Amino acid sequence: MQMKKIDGLIAAPFTPFDHDGELNLEIIPSYYQLLKRNGVTGAFICGSTGEGVSLTFEEKVLVLKAWTALTQSDPDFALMMFLGGTNIKECKELAKIAESAGADAISFTSPYYFKPANAGQLAKCCAEIAAAAPSIDFYYYHIPVLTGGNYAMYDLLQEVDDKIPNFKGIKYTHEDFMDFLTCMNFQQGKYNMLWGRDENMLSSLALGCTGAVGSTYNYAAPLYHELIKAYTEGDLKKANALQQKSIDMIRLLGKYGGIATGKAYMKLVEIDCGAFRLPIANMPADSFELFKKDVQALGFDDFKSK
Amino acid sequence: MQMKKIDGLIAAPFTPFDHDGELNLEIIPSYYQLLKRNGVTGAFICGSTGEGVSLTFEEKVLVLKAWTALTQSDPDFALMMFLGGTNIKECKELAKIAESAGADAISFTSPYYFKPANAGQLAKCCAEIAAAAPSIDFYYYHIPVLTGGNYAMYDLLQEVDDKIPNFKGIKYTHEDFMDFLTCMNFQQGKYNMLWGRDENMLSSLALGCTGAVGSTYNYAAPLYHELIKAYTEGDLKKANALQQKSIDMIRLLGKYGGIATGKAYMKLVEIDCGAFRLPIANMPADSFELFKKDVQALGFDDFKSK
Amino acid sequence: MQMKKIDGLIAAPFTPFDHDGELNLEIIPSYYQLLKRNGVTGAFICGSTGEGVSLTFEEKVLVLKAWTALTQSDPDFALMMFLGGTNIKECKELAKIAESAGADAISFTSPYYFKPANAGQLAKCCAEIAAAAPSIDFYYYHIPVLTGGNYAMYDLLQEVDDKIPNFKGIKYTHEDFMDFLTCMNFQQGKYNMLWGRDENMLSSLALGCTGAVGSTYNYAAPLYHELIKAYTEGDLKKANALQQKSIDMIRLLGKYGGIATGKAYMKLVEIDCGAFRLPIANMPADSFELFKKDVQALGFDDFKSK
Amino acid sequence: MQMKKIDGLIAAPFTPFDHDGELNLEIIPSYYQLLKRNGVTGAFICGSTGEGVSLTFEEKVLVLKAWTALTQSDPDFALMMFLGGTNIKECKELAKIAESAGADAISFTSPYYFKPANAGQLAKCCAEIAAAAPSIDFYYYHIPVLTGGNYAMYDLLQEVDDKIPNFKGIKYTHEDFMDFLTCMNFQQGKYNMLWGRDENMLSSLALGCTGAVGSTYNYAAPLYHELIKAYTEGDLKKANALQQKSIDMIRLLGKYGGIATGKAYMKLVEIDCGAFRLPIANMPADSFELFKKDVQALGFDDFKSK
Repeated sequence: MQMKKIDGLIAAPFTPFDHDGELNLEIIPSYYQLLKRNGVTGAFICGSTGEGVSLTFEEKVLVLKAWTALTQSDPDFALMMFLGGTNIKECKELAKIAESAGADAISFTSPYYFKPANAGQLAKCCAEIAAAAPSIDFYYYHIPVLTGGNYAMYDLLQEVDDKIPNFKGIKYTHEDFMDFLTCMNFQQGKYNMLWGRDENMLSSLALGCTGAVGSTYNYAAPLYHELIKAYTEGDLKKANALQQKSIDMIRLLGKYGGIATGKAYMKLVEIDCGAFRLPIANMPADSFELFKKDVQALGFDDFKSK
Repeated sequence: MQMKKIDGLIAAPFTPFDHDGELNLEIIPSYYQLLKRNGVTGAFICGSTGEGVSLTFEEKVLVLKAWTALTQSDPDFALMMFLGGTNIKECKELAKIAESAGADAISFTSPYYFKPANAGQLAKCCAEIAAAAPSIDFYYYHIPVLTGGNYAMYDLLQEVDDKIPNFKGIKYTHEDFMDFLTCMNFQQGKYNMLWGRDENMLSSLALGCTGAVGSTYNYAAPLYHELIKAYTEGDLKKANALQQKSIDMIRLLGKYGGIATGKAYMKLVEIDCGAFRLPIANMPADSFELFKKDVQALGFDDFKSK
Repeated sequence: MQMKKIDGLIAAPFTPFDHDGELNLEIIPSYYQLLKRNGVTGAFICGSTGEGVSLTFEEKVLVLKAWTALTQSDPDFALMMFLGGTNIKECKELAKIAESAGADAISFTSPYYFKPANAGQLAKCCAEIAAAAPSIDFYYYHIPVLTGGNYAMYDLLQEVDDKIPNFKGIKYTHEDFMDFLTCMNFQQGKYNMLWGRDENMLSSLALGCTGAVGSTYNYAAPLYHELIKAYTEGDLKKANALQQKSIDMIRLLGKYGGIATGKAYMKLVEIDCGAFRLPIANMPADSFELFKKDVQALGFDDFKSK
Repeated sequence: MQMKKIDGLIAAPFTPFDHDGELNLEIIPSYYQLLKRNGVTGAFICGSTGEGVSLTFEEKVLVLKAWTALTQSDPDFALMMFLGGTNIKECKELAKIAESAGADAISFTSPYYFKPANAGQLAKCCAEIAAAAPSIDFYYYHIPVLTGGNYAMYDLLQEVDDKIPNFKGIKYTHEDFMDFLTCMNFQQGKYNMLWGRDENMLSSLALGCTGAVGSTYNYAAPLYHELIKAYTEGDLKKANALQQKSIDMIRLLGKYGGIATGKAYMKLVEIDCGAFRLPIANMPADSFELFKKDVQALGFDDFKSK
C-alpha cells in the first residue's frame, strides 16, 4: 500500500454535537467537503480541538469511522487519529481500530496524569502503541502546555530512532524552535515535523517546515495558503501582514473565552458543530453578535474558508 | 438507607495485576481481609495508587464489583470509587454503575487535560457527576500535583454549598493547611475533610481531622493507628517519632523509583499485586533485595500490616 | 559571648517610610517597644515584609543600625538581619557589617535570578556568607514561592552539617511538613527550625516547633500567644478557632491587594510605616475604611498588639 | 544629540574577573576591539551573561565606565547598560550614572523577588526608571525564564505607549512569536524589537527583525553574519545549516554545565574573562580539554570571532 503523504495544511476538526450534546455525525461529509474545497490536505481528529478527551471510547470510534468512510478512498487527504495519552491500554485498542478502519496515521501524546519520568520512559509508551497498528504511521503529539510533559523532542527521536519502524514524525505544538529545528535536521530530515502553532507558522516556514496541523485551518485556510504563497515568493512584508491577521483572529479566541470560540468561527463558515462539552466553558449566547462584529472588522469574509 | 460513616484510615488499594499485566481480581478478597484485620475502615479504589487512569472502563467496572461484592454487606467498611476526571461523560456513566453496584461514595478530580477556568466551572462538572448518582456520597479529590488543577477548595465549597445535595467532602491531597482548615470549619464542619498525605498526618490531626485516605495504610496501618493513639493520649514525642518513621518509609518510595515501589511493599505483606502499567516505571528486579534490606532496617516488621 | 536564644514569636518588621518614600527611622524605637510589650522575642529585619530587596545597600545598613541600637543591650530580644540572596558579594559585605553592628544572626535565601543547580551549590553560597560573620548565627531563609529555589531543606542540612560551624537553622516559609519534620529531627534536633507561615502555626506546633517568624506577629501577637497557650493546655478546639481567626485576618491581605495591606494593619496599631515601594502595589486610599470595617468585624481589637 | 541606532548584532559581554574573582577591567579594550573586528554593533553590559546581578553597585559603575570610555566616541557602537530589576531605587540611581557616563541606553527587567501584579504595575516601574535618564533610550528586558515575570509584551507596550517618551523597545528573550510579532507591528513598528535567543535567530529574521542581543555574538559573530547573509540572499538551506551549527554550539553550554561555559568559549577567542561568581557553577578544570575537542569537532575555528 502506498502511504499518503502528510503535508500541507492539516485541519484539526471540531467534533460536531447536536443540541443535546450528543454526536452529530451527519455534518461530517459537508465538513470534509469544506476542507477539500479549501485545499486542506488532511484531518487530525479527536485531538484537542476535537475534544477527544471528552468523548467516550465508543464515540471516538464513531467519529473515526465517519471520517475514514470519506477519506479512505481519497488519495489526497490524510486522516490522523488522536488516541489520547493517559491510558495506554485504551490507546492500543483504539490504534487497532484506527488501523482497520483505514486511518492513515495514529497519534499519541504524553500521559498527563502520571507523567513519564523521562524521554526513555515516554518512548516505551510510544513503542507499545505504535506496535499495535504497525501498518500505519505513528506521530507523537507534543503539546506540553496541556499535558505537562515537557520532554525535548530531540531526546525522544534519539530514543525511538531505528526502534519504532512506523514512528514517522511529530505534531509539534510548542515554541521551542531550537528543539524543533534539531528534529527537522535529525538523520537528514528522516522525520516529518508538523508545525502546530498557527499563530507563528511564518517562523516555521523559515526553518523549511512544509506541514502544519491546526484548528484555524478549519475556517481560515485561504489566509494560510496566501501566507505560504507570499513567503514562497519572497514577499515577506505580505507574509508578515497575513501572519498578523492570523494572530488578530486567534486573539479573539482569548477575548471570547478560549477554545470554544472556535466553534463560533465554524458557525460563520456554515458548519454548526454545537457547543463544547464540560469542562470547557462556552461563549455566552449574547456575546455572539459582538464576536461577529469583531470578526467582520478583521475582514474575515475575505480569507475565511468557503 | 443508612449511609456509612467515612472516617478513620481509608486505604487506597493497588490494583492487582497478573504476570501478563491483566487484572488479577482473585486477590481482592484476601486484600480486603488484610485491611479489615488492620483496622482499615474503607477503600478508595481506582485512584492514583489504584492506577484508575491506566484501567479501561470495563476494567474499572470489574474492579469496582470485586470490591463491592465484599463491602456491600460490611457496615463498617466504606467503598469509595474514583471515577477519573478528564472525561465527564464517562465519569457519569461510571457513577451510575458505582451507585447500582453498591459503592458508598464516588470521587472525581479536576479535569487534567483541559483545566476548568475557575472553581465555578469545576463546580459545574461536580454537579453533573454528583447528580448521576444522587443516592450516594460525592467527594472531590484534590490532588493538584497530578492534575495541575490548583483551585482553593474553600472556593469550591462556596460554589457547591446548598447546590449539590450529595457533595459530602473532599479527599485533600495537597499541603495548603490554611485552605484545609478553612474547609474543616466551613459551615460548622458540614463537610467531611479526608487528609491525603500520609507523611504529615500529624499536622492534620492537630487541626481536628479524623479521616485520612492514603496508600501506606495498605501495608503499614498499625504504624498510623499507633501514631493516632499517641497523639490522642498527648504523647507528642512518640507521635513525632512515629510520623518520622512513616516519612522514612515513604522516602524509600523515592529512593526506589516512585509510586511503583508501593507494590514492592505489598509483596512484603504477602499481597502480590504484580507490576504497575505504563507509563509508570517499575523497580528493577535486582533492586528488590536492597529495598528489602532498607525496609527491614526501618523496623518494618514491627509496624507493617499483618 | 552568650548567644541569644532564638525562639518564640519573632516579628518580621515592616520598614517604615515617610511620605516621600524615604526611610523613617525615628519610628523604630516605638516599633520595638510595641513588640516588647506584646511578648515578641525578636525581629527578622529587611526580609520580605521589610522590603529588603527594595532598599539600597546603605538603607539596609541604616535600618540594621537603628534596630541593633535597641536590641544589642536587650538579652531577651534577638535581631536577625536578612542579607538578600542574589548578590553573594554584597551579602558578604552586609554580613560583616551586621556582625560588627551587633546583630544576633544573619539570614540568606536562595539566589533568585540565577538559581543554584542543586542543594550542594546552594550550600557553597551559604558557606561563603556564613564565614563572613563567623561569630554570629547563620539561618537559611527558605521561601521558594518568592525565590523559585525549591530545594529540600533536608538535602541542604546534609550538605552543610559539620561544614558550616555557625549554620544554626532555617526560617522555613513553605508547606512541606515532611521535609520540615525531617529537618526538626535531623541530628537529634541540632538545628533550630523556625516556622514561617503564620496561617498554619498550629500544624507546626504539633510537630514540636517552638519558634516562628512572621509578619502578623507585628500587629496580632496576642492572638498567637493565646493560640500557643490553648495548644499547650490541650484545648485544641480553642486553638483551632484561634488559628481560624488568624487565617481570616490573613485572608484580608489578599482581599485588599496583598502584602502592602500589612502596613494598613500597622496603622491600626498606631505604627505608621507609610507605603510599600514599587513594584508592590498599595491599597487605594479609599479602600482603607472598608478594610477597617472588615478588620473590626473580625474582632481585631481583642487580639491586636497593644 | 543624534541617538545611535541600535541594530544588527549586539553582544552581551561577559564581565572579566581575575584569578581572585575581582574585576579585571584592563581586558575590556581588547574585548571591545574583538567585537568591532567582528562586526558587532553594540554591547549590552551587566546583563545575564555579564553577571550584573552578581556585581556590587560600585562594580557595575566601574564596568559601565570602562565600556563607555570606549564607546562614547564611537558612533557605530551602542552601549546598553542593564540596571537590574528588583531594586527600583538602585536602578534609578544607576540609570542616572549611565546617562551621565555616556551610555546609549538603559535596560530594566521585571522585578524577580516581588513580581508586579500585572503589566500595568510593571509599566509603573518602567516609568520611574526611564524618567531617571530621560535623554537616553530605555529598553525593557523580557526574560521570564529567569525573572518569573511572564507578561505579554503587547500588554506592556499598550501600557507605556505615549506615556514613557524614551521607551524605545524590548530585548525579547522568550519564545512567544505571536507576542513578538504583534509588538513588531504595534503602532507601525514604532518600537525596536531586539531578538534575544541566538539559537533561533532565523525564525526572528523571517518576521523582519533586524536587531539581536546575545551571548554567542561575543565569540561566534561571523557565524551569524553568514546566517543573516544567507537568509537575505534567499539561501534558506544554508541559513538553516548555519542555525543548526549555532544550536550545536549552544548545546555544548548545556553539556558542560551551563552559562559558565560561555567563558570557556571566550578563552578560545583569546579573551580570558576568568570564572563565573557564585551561585553559578564553573566547568571543572579537567573538562576543558574535552570541551575543546567537542568545539573543534564543530568546526569552531571556521566561524569564531577573530
